[in-house]
Amino acid sequence: MKTLILSMSDIIAIVNQTGLNHIMDLMIRRLKDALKHFDDQAWVIPSRDGFDYTHPGRGLLEWMPILKKGHEVTFKMVGYHPTNPSRRQLPTILSSICTYDTINGHLAAIADATFLTALRTGAASAVASQAAARLDSDEIGIIGCGAQAVTQLHALSRVFDIRRVRAYDIDPTASRSFIDRTAFIGLDVRVAPLDEVVAQSDIICSATSVEKEKGPVFQDRNVKPWLHINAVGSDFPGKTELPQSLLQRSFVFPDFLEQAIVEGECQQLQEDEIGPSLTHIVKDEAKYLYLQQQLSVFDSTGWALEDQLAIALLIERAKDLERGTWIQLESDADDPKDPYAFLHGLTRPSKLRNGDALRKVLLVN
Amino acid sequence: MKTLILSMSDIIAIVNQTGLNHIMDLMIRRLKDALKHFDDQAWVIPSRDGFDYTHPGRGLLEWMPILKKGHEVTFKMVGYHPTNPSRRQLPTILSSICTYDTINGHLAAIADATFLTALRTGAASAVASQAAARLDSDEIGIIGCGAQAVTQLHALSRVFDIRRVRAYDIDPTASRSFIDRTAFIGLDVRVAPLDEVVAQSDIICSATSVEKEKGPVFQDRNVKPWLHINAVGSDFPGKTELPQSLLQRSFVFPDFLEQAIVEGECQQLQEDEIGPSLTHIVKDEAKYLYLQQQLSVFDSTGWALEDQLAIALLIERAKDLERGTWIQLESDADDPKDPYAFLHGLTRPSKLRNGDALRKVLLVN
Repeated sequence: MKTLILSMSDIIAIVNQTGLNHIMDLMIRRLKDALKHFDDQAWVIPSRDGFDYTHPGRGLLEWMPILKKGHEVTFKMVGYHPTNPSRRQLPTILSSICTYDTINGHLAAIADATFLTALRTGAASAVASQAAARLDSDEIGIIGCGAQAVTQLHALSRVFDIRRVRAYDIDPTASRSFIDRTAFIGLDVRVAPLDEVVAQSDIICSATSVEKEKGPVFQDRNVKPWLHINAVGSDFPGKTELPQSLLQRSFVFPDFLEQAIVEGECQQLQEDEIGPSLTHIVKDEAKYLYLQQQLSVFDSTGWALEDQLAIALLIERAKDLERGTWIQLESDADDPKDPYAFLHGLTRPSKLRNGDALRKVLLVN
Repeated sequence: MKTLILSMSDIIAIVNQTGLNHIMDLMIRRLKDALKHFDDQAWVIPSRDGFDYTHPGRGLLEWMPILKKGHEVTFKMVGYHPTNPSRRQLPTILSSICTYDTINGHLAAIADATFLTALRTGAASAVASQAAARLDSDEIGIIGCGAQAVTQLHALSRVFDIRRVRAYDIDPTASRSFIDRTAFIGLDVRVAPLDEVVAQSDIICSATSVEKEKGPVFQDRNVKPWLHINAVGSDFPGKTELPQSLLQRSFVFPDFLEQAIVEGECQQLQEDEIGPSLTHIVKDEAKYLYLQQQLSVFDSTGWALEDQLAIALLIERAKDLERGTWIQLESDADDPKDPYAFLHGLTRPSKLRNGDALRKVLLVN
């Protein structure tokens, strides 16, 4: 049995042939559909787990498993290394994803998930914003202009008619380059002072690399009464971006409650200050229409379901377009009761006389 | 940055050029050395976690993470699907393993771990047997003649002068074929009744696929007073193979206590009936010499440290022999702040007029 390997060049080809906008549109639609029809009996989705370390630098490697019962396990590994951009010309988030067949345990596919993570995180904000922001939202604020901000804006641009984008980053080179990085969307993107971003936006996406306990990244001042925030950056214990008072005045809905109370903005809230999850809101859109007129926050910590949909989409496109490399990774050949069976054909060690000692045999080999 | 992919054919080439005996010898020595010098401050080794399911068939997918501080994270995924051999001509255990660089989160390598798991499980039993079995042990008993049994015997053959091997499996075709599967070792291997295996062995390796709560797989009758058992098969909650009375009369030492009390033979014991771990015994061999004269059980549930050593060995050999395929898996190119940077060169969506709606854009792409 072979494993499908989807490399960077495969993803380039897939996006090239599918269209970047179309990929994002598919991701948004599939996520929305999946949430609408989500049945928690059909899935097992544990909170992510990981290693958090400070040596050789501050970093985090986390795994996000998800079981689609009777079908597959999807497993994403996410590296979060905030000094990657400045020190190594690498993205903060590096990620890969594997899917396993639950019939036999076979590793069916492995792919880059750096791109998919950015894509699905953008898509989740688009879905949340469609549910909780005013439909005529046309002023977008971006706080933190790193990699995630690009797909946040791209995704929003697919579902809102955007008139103006104001971008702020503590590092002015990041906010300036954001204009170039998002030029392909064709929007009016400007660098703006933080206060202006906060005061003028209908929707804000915040995705910074603020240190633990160093939030909030902006003040609760002069926000529009219907502001919707996609809070994307808060994703491990102690790291939060939003002012607590703003959270307390807002309808806050997480992607995944169990995780959000440990890693998300929900860390700053009591249980009774947290709304139902995005799934509930998408399932019952009519009931939550009123959110469009009030303060709301989508606490997006990243949910394994989003990753499962993203990799399923990528694999589907890869198969349609016949992209990717199939390799025989697992040594599963011939005799299932012989872990050396796959070696048949090579010269096995010759039969040894009973009593041959270790040293002697080493000379033979 | 590229990722090293080690496929089945790479492992064949590596074993072919290195020698199967030499690979096993290296694995045994490195494990022994690593245990002798093990510093628990240098590692983080959580208990494994996983999904246990019964649909579409009984199966288990488990992950075993390990952090070598300041260096790398190794992550093994293990599928355990006991109907694989009979229904699908596949091994019960299918496994793959990844290593990640903790400097930047990069996926450094991915490889088959089906072979490595069998190899390191054999090596662990060899190390444990050297510490706790009589040095002149020459009668080996095998209970359960599946894939793990092959490397159990191979590993023991590297460190003991074996005169006779008695093999038993509830499925007689398995015990018969075991003779062929282990012929390369050059030992006198015979199929024997279970009682004879139990009574005549100096060392027993048990590795069956007994169902949960259906153990023990043999009775506590007529064992030699110095019998050493490598209890390999017990590896999830409810599954045990050994008679409780025999465990209680023996010095039982686990590979990894936290895991063994949940998944191993230690499930059948009280805390004060469990000895120190293999690491302690290898570190202080002189103190534990007396074990060679008494009943002892190595409760081998499989420890992530063994996997880390196994993949490190394989990668080292691969690099020496220039085997494996390097592929650009992660989409990390060019601008770390642009998740679409790696797409540069392909036709990006053309700039859209402000207000273009979703449907319209889909037509463009």
